[in-house]
Amino acid sequence: MDELIQKGKQASEAAKTLAQLSTNKKNGALMQAAKLIIEKADYILSENQKDLNNANTNNVKGSLVDRLRLNSQRLESIAEGLEQVARLDDPIGETLSMKKRPNGLQIGQIRVPLGVIGIIYEARPNVTADAFALCLKTGNAVILRGGKEAIHSNMAIVKVIQDALSKEDIPTDAIQLVENTGRESAVAMMKLNEYLDVLIPRGGAGLIKTVVENSRVPVLETGIGNCHTFIDESANLEKAQKIAVNAKTHRPGVCNAMESLLIHEAVAEKILPPLCQELKSLNVEIRGDQKVCDLVPFSNNATPEDWGTEYLDLILSIKVVSSLDEAISHISTYGTGHSEAIVTENYSAAQRFLHEVDAAAVYVNASTRFTDGFEFGFGAEIGISTQKLHARGPMGLRELTSTKYIIYGDGQIRP
Amino acid sequence: MDELIQKGKQASEAAKTLAQLSTNKKNGALMQAAKLIIEKADYILSENQKDLNNANTNNVKGSLVDRLRLNSQRLESIAEGLEQVARLDDPIGETLSMKKRPNGLQIGQIRVPLGVIGIIYEARPNVTADAFALCLKTGNAVILRGGKEAIHSNMAIVKVIQDALSKEDIPTDAIQLVENTGRESAVAMMKLNEYLDVLIPRGGAGLIKTVVENSRVPVLETGIGNCHTFIDESANLEKAQKIAVNAKTHRPGVCNAMESLLIHEAVAEKILPPLCQELKSLNVEIRGDQKVCDLVPFSNNATPEDWGTEYLDLILSIKVVSSLDEAISHISTYGTGHSEAIVTENYSAAQRFLHEVDAAAVYVNASTRFTDGFEFGFGAEIGISTQKLHARGPMGLRELTSTKYIIYGDGQIRP
Repeated sequence: MDELIQKGKQASEAAKTLAQLSTNKKNGALMQAAKLIIEKADYILSENQKDLNNANTNNVKGSLVDRLRLNSQRLESIAEGLEQVARLDDPIGETLSMKKRPNGLQIGQIRVPLGVIGIIYEARPNVTADAFALCLKTGNAVILRGGKEAIHSNMAIVKVIQDALSKEDIPTDAIQLVENTGRESAVAMMKLNEYLDVLIPRGGAGLIKTVVENSRVPVLETGIGNCHTFIDESANLEKAQKIAVNAKTHRPGVCNAMESLLIHEAVAEKILPPLCQELKSLNVEIRGDQKVCDLVPFSNNATPEDWGTEYLDLILSIKVVSSLDEAISHISTYGTGHSEAIVTENYSAAQRFLHEVDAAAVYVNASTRFTDGFEFGFGAEIGISTQKLHARGPMGLRELTSTKYIIYGDGQIRP
Repeated sequence: MDELIQKGKQASEAAKTLAQLSTNKKNGALMQAAKLIIEKADYILSENQKDLNNANTNNVKGSLVDRLRLNSQRLESIAEGLEQVARLDDPIGETLSMKKRPNGLQIGQIRVPLGVIGIIYEARPNVTADAFALCLKTGNAVILRGGKEAIHSNMAIVKVIQDALSKEDIPTDAIQLVENTGRESAVAMMKLNEYLDVLIPRGGAGLIKTVVENSRVPVLETGIGNCHTFIDESANLEKAQKIAVNAKTHRPGVCNAMESLLIHEAVAEKILPPLCQELKSLNVEIRGDQKVCDLVPFSNNATPEDWGTEYLDLILSIKVVSSLDEAISHISTYGTGHSEAIVTENYSAAQRFLHEVDAAAVYVNASTRFTDGFEFGFGAEIGISTQKLHARGPMGLRELTSTKYIIYGDGQIRP
């Protein structure tokens, strides 16, 4: 697709300049962009209104319209986000190691930008500014391909950011938006390996699967979380109930929410009735195995499918297990390697769970809801990686960088 | 393909055990394998003879037959390689960071195995043992798919290693060899994303390109190197000549050898004649631009294609440039991001080259031949990455690992 190739070339060109920008220069542009987002609020909101009108015409469902809607408060939060990223440490240029070899060569490893980052996302215009901030701070150019529902909002935000870049004398191709929002532009992006150094899909499981299976560009896979909490026989049941309720109900629509609860049979009878009562009062539907159904009259029967389902909703599958081994094995079979928690007061059980469960984040006695770049103290987040290459878990600024070896010699040759 | 799916399942199962093995246990198995490689030399060599006979029948060319050939000396060197890896530090379990958050959560990042590694390689049986050693030491299971030319040798080496694993009570599926060496098994491996965590192609540019373009499994791209050396106007010409000759002729068939030489016009007249004379005496064919041809009567004319060619042979393209900018821009256009060197005594030129040239390894005043895991002090090498995700430059043990967050709580929930 010509649009993508053109944008790819421009991004590569811009990336060369971006890689060499000083931290001050990058921060200046972020502050300028924050300022303009507020100054040009009327323009952005009127463009956003076009998307809202189209959504209305096309009978887009309410929750999606809500994610699409901008208002002055949301613009302020977008601007604040840009300023926050300006305040974070610049990872570029950081020396990771510097060693002298026996032959006198001094070999250093330093942090450098990835180059050009592609992001395919769904209808959330705030992602547009967020992604730009993280990419600029790390010296990367970004090509954004958002959903068609938000195209007017995204174009407006990108235009305002480009104005800010222009004012700061930074190449405006640091951020580019793909205007074709058809399937073909997503496909073209996955084949743009000549220009893109990485592709990040942000959205539902279907989008991520498509990108992983079809992309020639290396992918940073984000976000499918079939997260478990295991309440061990030695758990403090008071803590366990609080943790389980929090993990399920604090924000059920996100990837670090608990989808499945495992309970040791030794404590099932004691904790299940009060826990399920509390969950029910918070409108959570329970889908349990036979033992759960026996103890909790309002539980529905879980089907084999339930164990592998990321509901992203107020639904919880519950299974009673006979041992820590069974819990670990169940998680190994059905987990997606995102966030898994054990509630226990037993030292060995905690250690075994931490080391044997293969996931990006493994918890003892805490809610899985903490898997998040801000909660981890990164000050930013581009998504949560569930793959094992390059980055695993919450991805902040560092995860948007690569490294490079620089070698100082004085005439060394291989003998 | 059933063979691959079966092997994938078995590798995943084995990987769970491997991830939990102690360093002592892994080292014991490596030492045992080294011992058996020597003890069973007759068996391995007789199997190797079958491959050599087939190569003979099929008129395989001499250099390939040489890479295929094993003898007692080469087996000793394979055994020594296994022992060397046993002596390296175990990266698994290393704590990369451990921080206490304001809410009391203690968040640590630790090094863990990747899981299951797939390697597609061409006809070098020593890779079989090498790859196994690095994968076992890092707690990974490995599925090897070697070339058909070496199938008997590879099967013999794998059998001996599996015997060693068996003796040490480690799952023999830690190493598996794909017996189908047809194209279809390579294709099936690229689609094995359910079981493989990473796929590493080791071989020529064609193999690597095919894998990058078709693999659903995340790829660690290795080794295409169109490496340059730039002799700046302020270069010490004696050093420059030594470095250029070493980079070209020390081992022309490998990826960190220099393929193209750039010379500042201010020093071209002085250095080109003696340098090219020395190269000629070492049987290097020169392909130069017009200025080079004017100064060096035995130079051939370089075609535009030459600038982008990785010869892997005693051929060198030479171009005279008018500035550091032109050199950097030429490298940006034709380089493959592997290893690039400048020879200069000028501080600013050195700094600009180090920071503006986008490659895995950038040198000042040294031969590009140093881009190598052993020369960098890693004690091992699985290949040299020219991609930016996960690993860049020589890859040792650490590059075969992932990370995992472990979080110690005492009942924390998201407020």
